[in-house]
Amino acid sequence: MSRQLQKMKNRIGLAPGSLVHIGTKKAEETRISVIDYNLADLKEQKFDSIRQVFPFFHLETASWINIDGLHDLELFSEIVAELNLHPLLMEDILDTGQRPKLEAYDDHLLLILKMITWNDTENRIDFEQVSFILGENYILSFQERQGDVFEHVRQRIRNPHSRIRKMKIDYLLYSLVDAIIDSYFLLISNLGDKIEEMEEALIKNPTDDILSDIHHIKRDVLFLRKSVWHLRSVISNLNSEDFPNITPELQTYLRDLYDNTIQVMDTIETYREIISGMLDIYLSSLSNRMNQVMKVLTIFAAIFIPLTFVAGVYGMNFHYMPELSWKWAYPIWWLIVIIITGGMVYYFKKKKWM
Amino acid sequence: MSRQLQKMKNRIGLAPGSLVHIGTKKAEETRISVIDYNLADLKEQKFDSIRQVFPFFHLETASWINIDGLHDLELFSEIVAELNLHPLLMEDILDTGQRPKLEAYDDHLLLILKMITWNDTENRIDFEQVSFILGENYILSFQERQGDVFEHVRQRIRNPHSRIRKMKIDYLLYSLVDAIIDSYFLLISNLGDKIEEMEEALIKNPTDDILSDIHHIKRDVLFLRKSVWHLRSVISNLNSEDFPNITPELQTYLRDLYDNTIQVMDTIETYREIISGMLDIYLSSLSNRMNQVMKVLTIFAAIFIPLTFVAGVYGMNFHYMPELSWKWAYPIWWLIVIIITGGMVYYFKKKKWM
Amino acid sequence: MSRQLQKMKNRIGLAPGSLVHIGTKKAEETRISVIDYNLADLKEQKFDSIRQVFPFFHLETASWINIDGLHDLELFSEIVAELNLHPLLMEDILDTGQRPKLEAYDDHLLLILKMITWNDTENRIDFEQVSFILGENYILSFQERQGDVFEHVRQRIRNPHSRIRKMKIDYLLYSLVDAIIDSYFLLISNLGDKIEEMEEALIKNPTDDILSDIHHIKRDVLFLRKSVWHLRSVISNLNSEDFPNITPELQTYLRDLYDNTIQVMDTIETYREIISGMLDIYLSSLSNRMNQVMKVLTIFAAIFIPLTFVAGVYGMNFHYMPELSWKWAYPIWWLIVIIITGGMVYYFKKKKWM
Amino acid sequence: MSRQLQKMKNRIGLAPGSLVHIGTKKAEETRISVIDYNLADLKEQKFDSIRQVFPFFHLETASWINIDGLHDLELFSEIVAELNLHPLLMEDILDTGQRPKLEAYDDHLLLILKMITWNDTENRIDFEQVSFILGENYILSFQERQGDVFEHVRQRIRNPHSRIRKMKIDYLLYSLVDAIIDSYFLLISNLGDKIEEMEEALIKNPTDDILSDIHHIKRDVLFLRKSVWHLRSVISNLNSEDFPNITPELQTYLRDLYDNTIQVMDTIETYREIISGMLDIYLSSLSNRMNQVMKVLTIFAAIFIPLTFVAGVYGMNFHYMPELSWKWAYPIWWLIVIIITGGMVYYFKKKKWM
Amino acid sequence: MSRQLQKMKNRIGLAPGSLVHIGTKKAEETRISVIDYNLADLKEQKFDSIRQVFPFFHLETASWINIDGLHDLELFSEIVAELNLHPLLMEDILDTGQRPKLEAYDDHLLLILKMITWNDTENRIDFEQVSFILGENYILSFQERQGDVFEHVRQRIRNPHSRIRKMKIDYLLYSLVDAIIDSYFLLISNLGDKIEEMEEALIKNPTDDILSDIHHIKRDVLFLRKSVWHLRSVISNLNSEDFPNITPELQTYLRDLYDNTIQVMDTIETYREIISGMLDIYLSSLSNRMNQVMKVLTIFAAIFIPLTFVAGVYGMNFHYMPELSWKWAYPIWWLIVIIITGGMVYYFKKKKWM
Repeated sequence: MSRQLQKMKNRIGLAPGSLVHIGTKKAEETRISVIDYNLADLKEQKFDSIRQVFPFFHLETASWINIDGLHDLELFSEIVAELNLHPLLMEDILDTGQRPKLEAYDDHLLLILKMITWNDTENRIDFEQVSFILGENYILSFQERQGDVFEHVRQRIRNPHSRIRKMKIDYLLYSLVDAIIDSYFLLISNLGDKIEEMEEALIKNPTDDILSDIHHIKRDVLFLRKSVWHLRSVISNLNSEDFPNITPELQTYLRDLYDNTIQVMDTIETYREIISGMLDIYLSSLSNRMNQVMKVLTIFAAIFIPLTFVAGVYGMNFHYMPELSWKWAYPIWWLIVIIITGGMVYYFKKKKWM
Repeated sequence: MSRQLQKMKNRIGLAPGSLVHIGTKKAEETRISVIDYNLADLKEQKFDSIRQVFPFFHLETASWINIDGLHDLELFSEIVAELNLHPLLMEDILDTGQRPKLEAYDDHLLLILKMITWNDTENRIDFEQVSFILGENYILSFQERQGDVFEHVRQRIRNPHSRIRKMKIDYLLYSLVDAIIDSYFLLISNLGDKIEEMEEALIKNPTDDILSDIHHIKRDVLFLRKSVWHLRSVISNLNSEDFPNITPELQTYLRDLYDNTIQVMDTIETYREIISGMLDIYLSSLSNRMNQVMKVLTIFAAIFIPLTFVAGVYGMNFHYMPELSWKWAYPIWWLIVIIITGGMVYYFKKKKWM
Repeated sequence: MSRQLQKMKNRIGLAPGSLVHIGTKKAEETRISVIDYNLADLKEQKFDSIRQVFPFFHLETASWINIDGLHDLELFSEIVAELNLHPLLMEDILDTGQRPKLEAYDDHLLLILKMITWNDTENRIDFEQVSFILGENYILSFQERQGDVFEHVRQRIRNPHSRIRKMKIDYLLYSLVDAIIDSYFLLISNLGDKIEEMEEALIKNPTDDILSDIHHIKRDVLFLRKSVWHLRSVISNLNSEDFPNITPELQTYLRDLYDNTIQVMDTIETYREIISGMLDIYLSSLSNRMNQVMKVLTIFAAIFIPLTFVAGVYGMNFHYMPELSWKWAYPIWWLIVIIITGGMVYYFKKKKWM
Repeated sequence: MSRQLQKMKNRIGLAPGSLVHIGTKKAEETRISVIDYNLADLKEQKFDSIRQVFPFFHLETASWINIDGLHDLELFSEIVAELNLHPLLMEDILDTGQRPKLEAYDDHLLLILKMITWNDTENRIDFEQVSFILGENYILSFQERQGDVFEHVRQRIRNPHSRIRKMKIDYLLYSLVDAIIDSYFLLISNLGDKIEEMEEALIKNPTDDILSDIHHIKRDVLFLRKSVWHLRSVISNLNSEDFPNITPELQTYLRDLYDNTIQVMDTIETYREIISGMLDIYLSSLSNRMNQVMKVLTIFAAIFIPLTFVAGVYGMNFHYMPELSWKWAYPIWWLIVIIITGGMVYYFKKKKWM
Repeated sequence: MSRQLQKMKNRIGLAPGSLVHIGTKKAEETRISVIDYNLADLKEQKFDSIRQVFPFFHLETASWINIDGLHDLELFSEIVAELNLHPLLMEDILDTGQRPKLEAYDDHLLLILKMITWNDTENRIDFEQVSFILGENYILSFQERQGDVFEHVRQRIRNPHSRIRKMKIDYLLYSLVDAIIDSYFLLISNLGDKIEEMEEALIKNPTDDILSDIHHIKRDVLFLRKSVWHLRSVISNLNSEDFPNITPELQTYLRDLYDNTIQVMDTIETYREIISGMLDIYLSSLSNRMNQVMKVLTIFAAIFIPLTFVAGVYGMNFHYMPELSWKWAYPIWWLIVIIITGGMVYYFKKKKWM
């Protein structure tokens, strides 16, 4: 949370449209790679300078230009100038505190999404912003750092018989977004495993640490939910309106994408209700344990306090206590003790406290 | 839940439209059966190969082709080729993690629903995906395994005077969906019985196991609710829009179907609120029992601790304690004990603790 | 609840449109009565056979044909044939598990409502389904058993100066529905009295039975709410759309009807929130009582346990205990006991525990 | 609540449109007063008979006819006849269980609102129904009893330079409604003071009475909320639709009125959430106090029970107990007692229980 | 809260449109400053009298006239007269209890917003009302006191290459609103830090003060939420409708503004849920601590009460108690004591109570 807010603070007081990278510098150097393909040919290249990439914007073949790293502000100014982009567009791309967003411009489309991965070392969800500019024959994508969830997509591009090679550039956009939503499936599947573990632990042995675990997973689910909520609305817009460079053939695929986000949303909502239920169970188990403790105390007290009294009676020093000199007094006294104890045990057994 | 997520994981990284059966292999072999009928005639046949079935797609008579088992991928590719289906359509049918869905194509309609049954051995709800392709004169249905809720429908088809025989193929679709919704009625009726049992048990004798029972039934209801929610929206769409191969005469029937799903939805919502109420009762009963335990403890302590003190007084060894040598001291002491005890008992009776 | 579900089970597997009475047989024999009137004349008659009633469907005068008892299936088939009704229409009338419903057909209107009465002997709400078919000059009404809430309406019909006699048949429908909604007012007024009683009892003397009372009334309110919700939406539809045989003059009356259902709905919603608040009060009162019990225990323990120790000290048998042989030791010891006790009492008084 | 329901009961079985005063008779005699004005002149008069007032309905000047007291049914019949009102209109005015309502008729407008005041003696909110009939040049207002919130408005009418005198009769209606909404502001301001007092009391010294106070104020807020909700929707309708006798110039004023009701609504909603929060605080404070009680008990028990045992050891009568005859045994024993006590006190201090 | 209500009370009974400053007098004297600019020139001036400012309303260049202090009613009357404003417009500006508001008039636009700052000394949120009148070439802004969040905007105006200088006056309005929304970001970022601190404190060491802290921050968040809710709806309206003096080029910027308010809203909603979760944690921690106290009590009682009984047995004075005279009786007795103690300790260790 504090990271999100940190980003907000950094933005305050800036002129709208200022190109400033808001976020942690996650990539050491900016890497530019291009995959250019049509049905027949495929070229994959890496470049040092953005200027070398500009010709791809104007080719007839489909080009996917990917840029890892958002801190080289000069590079982004050059792109803005070359493609004549709106001042706010590039600001949004560089501001990694952005929520998922879809914005249509005259001849291109801006789509900003979040890639999510589970960070095992710090035990939290990592968000990485991915932005796409869809032009007529190119996709320009921006990532915060190297490494992504698009490897499957690249392999499919390399396969000359894949549907990507046969269809227009908008199908590539769909494939990339689909890969991102798959990363949500992976994450909620992990979350689901964790929740199930916690549920079992909760019923078997409700320790105190589990409360803070529940609280943390609840927060993760809350943040995830907000994020997926906006994702859903972005995909829904993509699905329902006409956008430049999106062909009508893509509609069926986009509807499928929308169905998938709904399913992610549903699962997260269900998780949320299950987690709420876990808190109730935890509270009940606390009450239950308190009951157990109280019963142990009550059993001990109810058995031994009367006995102590009975022992106290014959510890008195009255001169005239006839029982004291009776021969069988002491064994009879023990008998009484045993009868009292037995009666108590029977009573508590009947009450199911023992 | 974990099964659902398992399915999601399996899908990750696949190209959209890949024909892969996502789900457990539930049927050993694929069975193909056809019921072909018009007002006058009826043919029921089983086939080994899907190719033998293809002629039925083109007959004037109504044909219901049912396929049990989703693992024979070659068979499904042949259907896709024969009927010229959209690549995503068959992917949806084979992916049993799908939510209820209604998709219109040029000359056919895809309807995916869930059949639900209560699995007594594992004490949970079993979902089985059923998909229907409605063509001009045929229904192609896909089930995960043999056995279904359609036996009543088959009998009605066999009856030459039934309305199914008189009406178009869309009426058969309605009858099949109606049978599925009946299976929801059956299930929620079972759930209702279980909830009533639990309620009675809760008020009579609130044991600790009941908490986990409540939690489990709550989860079942949550999942069921999600499922029915989507079902409702599918039926609502079917009702409100124009679809290929659905005649206007069916509207009244579809509205009736919609009313039924609303009733299922209502009942589930009411169950949910009742289950929430049960948790409150459980928590109150915990508090109540704690109160009982505390009262037992307090009664014992309040009676015997003062008595033990009184006994302790005359166990002291002071040289000058005049009472010790009084003749009636010991009986008087017992009298005091009895008075104290009686007073306490009276006090607790008045407080209604005994 | 179980009765509702029982009805659902009975319906499973039936062909849509089958005429089966779903529900308990509430009337021993079917009674048919007709009130036929215009501004000048009035005829009231009872009939044995439905065929004798058919002429009334075609008279110019307004006719209210009422049928008590839904088990004589042949009678209903004859009506279906005579009036040429849709197969699902009569099924809905006979299925008493139906929710309130409004359905328009070519030349008639179906309106299904629930009459509710408080069943004092079984301490629950009784629902009775009433269905109306509004034709051009007739209302055909169906009730599950004899006895209804329409007596006031009948008296107004008999009064030759009443507005019913002056207006069209749709005004009679409005009057009947108005009488039904009045029965809701009566019921929620009863419920309100019960809730107020419970509230007073809860604050004066929160016994344990009250929890189960709260739970039961909460369930009643939940079911009532669902029912009124559908009623509201039926009346709202009646109000907002054009229907056959409903004249524009009725709009003002229907709007008034709608206002009344809103008021019923509001009151029920408020009851629901008050009942939730009662549960909170109950839980607090449990905690409060626990606090009382704990205080009693603590006071006894805190006073007598130290005293018992002080007595135990001088019960020790050490040979050299100088105090034992002091002359005033024993009275001084009592002084100490009284001082300790007094101090404790003062302490607990200050803490407001005593 | 019971008063509201009482009213409902009274209405049951009446023919729609019957003129019956439903509510408590709040005014001893009916008072009729008229303010008739235009830019130049002003007349204020009281009348005994309603017939004397009828000419004002037809004057060109603006007339505000106010009637206090709703029990003189003949008077209302005369008005109905004179102005040719719809039968349901006057029924609504006389039924004080009515919710706020806006109804347009051909040449007049009916507006029913609730005036609210805080009843200090009975410690509850008093609702008084005020109804307005807006004709072309007159407003006819009905109040349950004398005394109202319109004194400021009257003074403004008397001021010949006020805007009321310059504008049409609809501006007077707006001024009257504005005065009513001001009475809501006054009430919620009082409520707010009460809530703040309770909050402070709750944190300083959470007594048990406060629970019932919270419950009562919660109920008041619930009822107020319902009432304001309907008020809001009436004002919203007045704002958004065209009504007879309302000039377009009034729109800006009505929008302002709507803003004020929204603000009342907002404040009430916030109160509701704050009151819910207070219940949580109360429950926590109960738990906290229980913890305090438990700690006192535990400290006493943990210190003195071991000491009692230690004293009991040397009260035993074994013949061979070497310590008994040691010279310093008794002082050493006291040393042990002091060490044990000191250890315990240290332990509980460290745990912050003391 | 009480301040808000105080304002409401002040308003009661006033004629609509009366110019009265409702709120605390926050500025000692009214300050008037003007920034007048076009692409080439910039003039910044301060004025003593509002009349000197009137020429700027009619210049071709863009003019931002800012007025600090709302108590000089004469000044505002002059503005109303000069610009021919609607009577309610200026009333709204002077009433600082106003919620955010957007109102279009024939040739100008009224926008009322709230600037928020965290008041460290009184530990609460300070709201300051800012109103803007957007004319064709001027913005007239009103603030309650000196000091605002617009310093960044002024600097950008002074920079001759900034976008503000190149664009129309509506872009200045956008920049000012953007600066206000930035102040919300700053505040929720502060709130977020506080919440995180509280969360850590809650898990490490849940003291009792924290409950009242949670309650206070919850109230702050509730009030903030209401305020942002209205802000959001104002920005949304600004975005979706056509308004005078707002050029189509501003749409993209307004959409961006709307995105920012959504993000503020989202964060506040998430805070709200986190704060609710904190209350649950607090309650659980109370229960947990109670459990700890109970366990300490039970352990002491269960160990020493039986031992006291065992000591009591041999403190009895029966004449015939063979054990008393056994030589090893006393050591054996101690052995028994040690065994009992050891057994108890083992038992409680196994139960994880020690």
